Amino acid sequence: MGGDRGPAAVVAGIAESAEKNPDIHFIVHGPRAEIEQLIARRSGLAARCDIRDAAGVVTMDDKPSQVLRKGEGTSMWSAVESVRLGEATVAVSCGNTGALMALSMLRLRKLPGVNRPAIACLWPSRNPQGFNVMLDCGADIRADAQDLVTYALMGTSYARNGLGLARPRVGLLNVGTEEHKGRPEMRQAHELMPATAEAANFDYVGFVEGGDLPSDRVDVIVTDGFTGNVALKTGEGTAKLVGDFLKEAFGKSILSKFAALLALNSLKRLQKRIDPRRVNGGVFLGLNGTVVKSHGSADSTGISAAIKLAFQLAQSGFQDRLAARVAQTAAQAAALNTTRNENQDHSEGTS
Amino acid sequence: MGGDRGPAAVVAGIAESAEKNPDIHFIVHGPRAEIEQLIARRSGLAARCDIRDAAGVVTMDDKPSQVLRKGEGTSMWSAVESVRLGEATVAVSCGNTGALMALSMLRLRKLPGVNRPAIACLWPSRNPQGFNVMLDCGADIRADAQDLVTYALMGTSYARNGLGLARPRVGLLNVGTEEHKGRPEMRQAHELMPATAEAANFDYVGFVEGGDLPSDRVDVIVTDGFTGNVALKTGEGTAKLVGDFLKEAFGKSILSKFAALLALNSLKRLQKRIDPRRVNGGVFLGLNGTVVKSHGSADSTGISAAIKLAFQLAQSGFQDRLAARVAQTAAQAAALNTTRNENQDHSEGTS
Repeated sequence: MGGDRGPAAVVAGIAESAEKNPDIHFIVHGPRAEIEQLIARRSGLAARCDIRDAAGVVTMDDKPSQVLRKGEGTSMWSAVESVRLGEATVAVSCGNTGALMALSMLRLRKLPGVNRPAIACLWPSRNPQGFNVMLDCGADIRADAQDLVTYALMGTSYARNGLGLARPRVGLLNVGTEEHKGRPEMRQAHELMPATAEAANFDYVGFVEGGDLPSDRVDVIVTDGFTGNVALKTGEGTAKLVGDFLKEAFGKSILSKFAALLALNSLKRLQKRIDPRRVNGGVFLGLNGTVVKSHGSADSTGISAAIKLAFQLAQSGFQDRLAARVAQTAAQAAALNTTRNENQDHSEGTS
Repeated sequence: MGGDRGPAAVVAGIAESAEKNPDIHFIVHGPRAEIEQLIARRSGLAARCDIRDAAGVVTMDDKPSQVLRKGEGTSMWSAVESVRLGEATVAVSCGNTGALMALSMLRLRKLPGVNRPAIACLWPSRNPQGFNVMLDCGADIRADAQDLVTYALMGTSYARNGLGLARPRVGLLNVGTEEHKGRPEMRQAHELMPATAEAANFDYVGFVEGGDLPSDRVDVIVTDGFTGNVALKTGEGTAKLVGDFLKEAFGKSILSKFAALLALNSLKRLQKRIDPRRVNGGVFLGLNGTVVKSHGSADSTGISAAIKLAFQLAQSGFQDRLAARVAQTAAQAAALNTTRNENQDHSEGTS
């Protein structure tokens, strides 16, 4: 209910997803009468949806702390609750990010071994898989060295299950690639990373810079939620600026308009590659349950993309694999700490 | 000497600038024989250039601390020295950023009232002037509340003298526009900003997000050097990605290649608007002397753009105006602190 375009856009996105994929079942949260009416307008959709009546709405202006105290009865609370109770495998929301994260932490609780949960987003890239993973995109404005290492574990789990990469390459976002660059917690994480990479079956490529976010030398980019959020919005803003300039350039003369007409397919292909709606969906990692945050302003195409991502993760058994991976590595780290000078064999799973 | 493309690219850039602008005189620093030979190849350039013999080179891998100890005799040291001695109005370098900033701080010293100098860069924007100013782009990975306020003063001085804006609008980069968002030093700077804006004759628009960097609701974006550096490189990387995708899209079929040919002027116009070489030049602010840092990999076009920027700033008397503005505001702040509860009239200059 709390997205910028209201429940009509959400139901339209559900309808798109339902049509494309017969295996998804939906639990829709909001005021029953309003939701029923919206669903009834789409032929065949009612049979695919359960409705959970929830009269309240978390608005974009509500502070997370308010929502924690008074949020029961809202559609957001109800959606998270359906994951907690095991009725839903994944929750998808277009609402207030801070409130959704706070509610998810309160109700789903953090996974053992996770201090700070993170939001992972997809970034269009030059890699064969077409996307890189970046986290944290804004769950928490701080992250210490151990958090950054945990982000690497969670991000590689996501890359394995969401993007099908067997051995993801991880980079730490910094202002330079030299060892002495960056804040103390980054240099410390940089030192911890090789051992974790070996134990958890990923490659650590070292420090990367902002220009590497779309590069093909890395699959998972780890950073704190402040930097990640600024980078994400800067990237989106830049892509939009270039797209707008492109439109202006092609609208300038009759000749260029004609050229644009001829190049329509090429331009559409380009637009598809950089369309932020296609990569819609920040995934909350590190909780006992998966939550996908769609852009607040997402239209039906964007919402359908977020649902598709949620479905993929649900089908891959991502949640259990990630939990096992983090718990295993946390246990290994603890064991390593107590017997630091002995040699140890680490079993390597596939999660 | 320390740029990625060596002295040939620098001399080529000097030649471009010399041809476009008869009012610039150059002092060129490096091994005399090599530099003389490069300059002699360009007709008429020798008469426009003085050469300062400097055998040493600061490489991209040199640590700033090493350069401070052993950098005397390098071309970088010599270039900064020529500003210190008043022989040059501005220094331009393509070399190691960290070393250049450390050397500039050591030799030129910080302006009274400045704790942390900053690097300001230009960002292609939707504003009539075509660019926004962002600082700090990487001089220092930290910034406290008072530093951020000083960045606002220095950035507005730059926007007045470099972009011709009478009353620049300043925004603080954050992860949201709400008052409770962000790190403590940002919330504190947010509180200090309105009074500073009034005293220093700029508009404070509040918190802005990464997506606002190219926006027309702000002219100067203030942030710490870590975030600024990541944002800058993310923006450049994204623009390059979209540009490459565009090229690929137009190279796909014969029809689209033909379309690209027809749209050549439009595409060139677009390329010009987003060409990072055109906005080449990070300006070091807060020192007793102006230093312009060109991209390490700049070609002659990029170097010429950096020289043009340096020339503009030199002609506008920017250095003295900025110094006066910072000193005046520092004095006002001190006076305000000692007589906090009295009413005071603040004189408003035009610097």
